[in-house]
Amino acid sequence: MRAHNLALVLHTVANSTDPPSRAAVATATGLTRATVSALVDDLVAGGLLVEVDPPPRTGAGRPAVGLTLTSAGPAGLGLEINVDYLAACVVDLTGAVRHRHVERADQRPADPAQALAALGRLAATARHAAEADGLIVAGAALAVPGLVAGGVVRVAPNLGWQDVDAVAALRAVPELAGLPITVDNEANLAALGELRVTGGPPPTGTAAPTAQAIAAAAPGVTAPAGAAPDPAAAAAGDLPIPGHPWDRRSFLYISGEIGIGAGLVIDGELYRGVRGWSGEIGHVTVYPDGRPCRCGARGCLEQYAGQEALARDEQLAAAALGIALSAVVNLLDVPVIVLGGAYAPIFGSLRDGIEAELRRRVLTAGLAPVTLRPAALGPDAAMRGAADTIIRAVREDPAAWLRRLS
Amino acid sequence: MRAHNLALVLHTVANSTDPPSRAAVATATGLTRATVSALVDDLVAGGLLVEVDPPPRTGAGRPAVGLTLTSAGPAGLGLEINVDYLAACVVDLTGAVRHRHVERADQRPADPAQALAALGRLAATARHAAEADGLIVAGAALAVPGLVAGGVVRVAPNLGWQDVDAVAALRAVPELAGLPITVDNEANLAALGELRVTGGPPPTGTAAPTAQAIAAAAPGVTAPAGAAPDPAAAAAGDLPIPGHPWDRRSFLYISGEIGIGAGLVIDGELYRGVRGWSGEIGHVTVYPDGRPCRCGARGCLEQYAGQEALARDEQLAAAALGIALSAVVNLLDVPVIVLGGAYAPIFGSLRDGIEAELRRRVLTAGLAPVTLRPAALGPDAAMRGAADTIIRAVREDPAAWLRRLS
Repeated sequence: MRAHNLALVLHTVANSTDPPSRAAVATATGLTRATVSALVDDLVAGGLLVEVDPPPRTGAGRPAVGLTLTSAGPAGLGLEINVDYLAACVVDLTGAVRHRHVERADQRPADPAQALAALGRLAATARHAAEADGLIVAGAALAVPGLVAGGVVRVAPNLGWQDVDAVAALRAVPELAGLPITVDNEANLAALGELRVTGGPPPTGTAAPTAQAIAAAAPGVTAPAGAAPDPAAAAAGDLPIPGHPWDRRSFLYISGEIGIGAGLVIDGELYRGVRGWSGEIGHVTVYPDGRPCRCGARGCLEQYAGQEALARDEQLAAAALGIALSAVVNLLDVPVIVLGGAYAPIFGSLRDGIEAELRRRVLTAGLAPVTLRPAALGPDAAMRGAADTIIRAVREDPAAWLRRLS
Repeated sequence: MRAHNLALVLHTVANSTDPPSRAAVATATGLTRATVSALVDDLVAGGLLVEVDPPPRTGAGRPAVGLTLTSAGPAGLGLEINVDYLAACVVDLTGAVRHRHVERADQRPADPAQALAALGRLAATARHAAEADGLIVAGAALAVPGLVAGGVVRVAPNLGWQDVDAVAALRAVPELAGLPITVDNEANLAALGELRVTGGPPPTGTAAPTAQAIAAAAPGVTAPAGAAPDPAAAAAGDLPIPGHPWDRRSFLYISGEIGIGAGLVIDGELYRGVRGWSGEIGHVTVYPDGRPCRCGARGCLEQYAGQEALARDEQLAAAALGIALSAVVNLLDVPVIVLGGAYAPIFGSLRDGIEAELRRRVLTAGLAPVTLRPAALGPDAAMRGAADTIIRAVREDPAAWLRRLS
């Protein structure tokens, strides 16, 4: 019961527009003020909430102290290994990115142990930077472009990996000692990251925020010095996030990298497949007798819209994406498609070609519109989603975090 | 509470292997014997349960009277309108088919009003036959090959229907007066019918029944005089229903008619799509520049594996099915594909061709097997599924049925 109430109080504070007082939390939760005060004391002592000065008030009476999530407590370490880069980020309890580093290098010549050792160094640096900044890294999650089961990367075709125990390799890094570490498919994690940023709480009739409002609400995001402004974020800024609740909580996230993955979110839940291996849209056939794929089949989407094909012919990529996405919509009646990874920055170039195929090939195109939009998090979505899984675990079970500290 | 307990008692009796005594029902439900007796009295008085003589016992003491679902109470009227036939069946509370009539005739020359009038006559005959047999028809459900929303058939491309209020047309039939009537997509209803027959209750570690055991447990099924034995049922008899719980409760049902529909069942739940329009596998592209389809696109599965194409070339149909089904498995990681409608009787001819494409095109083919099987109900699945929705409603809320009677 206490565990449930701790989570309820934390959730209430996290979802308030302004820092609420203890009394306001009591009203919102239906708990007594005494109970709320005891729970808040524990959450403050455990470094999850902080008290902030109230805004000046014009009325009479002493204004109450407000509560807000701490930016100096537990943090999630998000890691990503992909075909042409390694990446790490640290996200604090408020969802702000506090550290971000991307190392561009083709990982295919490296064997899994080399690649994981290099990622381990990146992770160690990130952990040091976070702790120097007053954060406590609560755990690490790794995004990989492959099929994952039981912590093991069973197959990552574009990395050339088979049965790689990535978790064990990272556990062996001395600087990561003591951290819980998980691994998951990159498109699944990116879809969760997208949901976290744009999905909002379960629909209760509130107005949908625009992408600009979402971006403005994430002031902690920092880009490395000299980085170009993110064109995906700029493109997203032009578009309101569609207003129907299902537009924000049900979508297919498609991630263009060297390979192509997808994460399907239905009503706020990630669909993982019956055995955990859904989302392999890169191997959906678009031209049955077409280009040979490294998976052994012919005509896979990846051969027409993977990053290498994309660099050669964006319009062919758009048409192939349109054919495969039409299959998704015909089968699943998904109202929104989010273009992530390498697709996000060139959303404007791909959109018309994809939409032309959707109009032509989706049976219900005239009855039920399908909205395309670029990923709100751009190419960082997978590692942000990975870090978010750590943060979400703390926010959903603060009692477990307090026990870990004590 | 009483409504909940009535459903619990009915469910317990329905899922017992042998007719349980009142005492056995009390033990199974955790209710007191007095409560169970009062509930059973109501269910017997309302014509949902009957008491049966106990089997002879060798031990001492008077054997208790057993309880079983009635075969003389409420029944569901299942209706189907498809491109080349009309059909009606009556299913009693035990799931047995008590009446079945199929009228083969091309419905495309008929306008919707004519087709629905002819179906109304079939439905009236079925209701009379059921009532002559001591049954009370509790409602009717209509299966159509099209997109349905709010009781209206929005589009049924192969019938040439658009915005047809099929429910209103059937309500106007005098012999159907007073019946609740619903309409749904035929593949969705067929998938629900398949789940009802093969899915069993939520998994609790029990052994999976074989298709033969399932067939033996449905003694009320009658075929019209002179009908050939159902080859689909024979084929299913050779196969055990796969034993993993997800094999029985998660599958894609694909229905081959003039058009092709699909119903996706995940963990015992039908997935209907975010706006209710999922399952349009007939319009998944298999050859992007291929045959023109009546939907306006090119290369739709329907043009290669619909009933008309199937009659010309079964192997081309199998390859096209394999390509489209590979997309389903790559996207959704579905472990079982059930071939229904016109595919069920020729399952043996299609299987190799489909499996060859699945082996070649599904990325996880080597990691997670995909099982193909023919629909247990063969071509009757949609109207059986329709009738089952009526029966299921009575079984899930017997209190509502008792109120309707009083």
